[in-house]
Amino acid sequence: MSDPSHTADCLFCGIVRGDVPAEVVLSTDTAVCFRDTMPQAPTHVLVVPRSHHANAVELARHDPSGLAELVEVADKVAESEGLAGDYRLVFNTGAGAGQSVFHTHLHVLGGRPMNWPPG
Amino acid sequence: MSDPSHTADCLFCGIVRGDVPAEVVLSTDTAVCFRDTMPQAPTHVLVVPRSHHANAVELARHDPSGLAELVEVADKVAESEGLAGDYRLVFNTGAGAGQSVFHTHLHVLGGRPMNWPPG
Repeated sequence: MSDPSHTADCLFCGIVRGDVPAEVVLSTDTAVCFRDTMPQAPTHVLVVPRSHHANAVELARHDPSGLAELVEVADKVAESEGLAGDYRLVFNTGAGAGQSVFHTHLHVLGGRPMNWPPG
Repeated sequence: MSDPSHTADCLFCGIVRGDVPAEVVLSTDTAVCFRDTMPQAPTHVLVVPRSHHANAVELARHDPSGLAELVEVADKVAESEGLAGDYRLVFNTGAGAGQSVFHTHLHVLGGRPMNWPPG
């Protein structure tokens, strides 16, 4: 945990613990995957590691294999959603880039043509 | 290498080898970072592993620590670009999601407010 003092108040830690409801689509030993409550595409799932890290680079530094598992789990979600190998993965880092929950989460988007620029 | 037969024709393998010109901003033992030729933000850099894998999940499966290094290098690029901790990371997987070069590359975007949806 890169900042364990924050986990009690962390929304995504609450979902991981099962204290906060979410539409979970896949749960593994290391990650929980649930639908974004404000979906931006027909499939918009957040892949969240069970351990608390503030963002992608903190996860990469402290749990590199956990980052790889996150991407592998995201691919499983894409497959189960029928995305046929076409999907976009997004990590926002910092409020200025759109990060609103400071617990690493990987957006998986697909099910429609994904436009460019990516926001 | 997840598909070594393709590396001879791969544009990004050519850049990694130095055979194809690119505006390189950072080069490490494992990755080469260069500006996108069609930038979508004031900073738009591609972080590319030196080893050839078709996409993010192939890199995660075959070289998990390489994936973590890619994200750590992306953070270094963001810092050197003065993005002050605000940046978006994007992996496109499949042509339908906007992937045009089938060698894993992580888009680093920032320097302006990043909008939502991410494409």
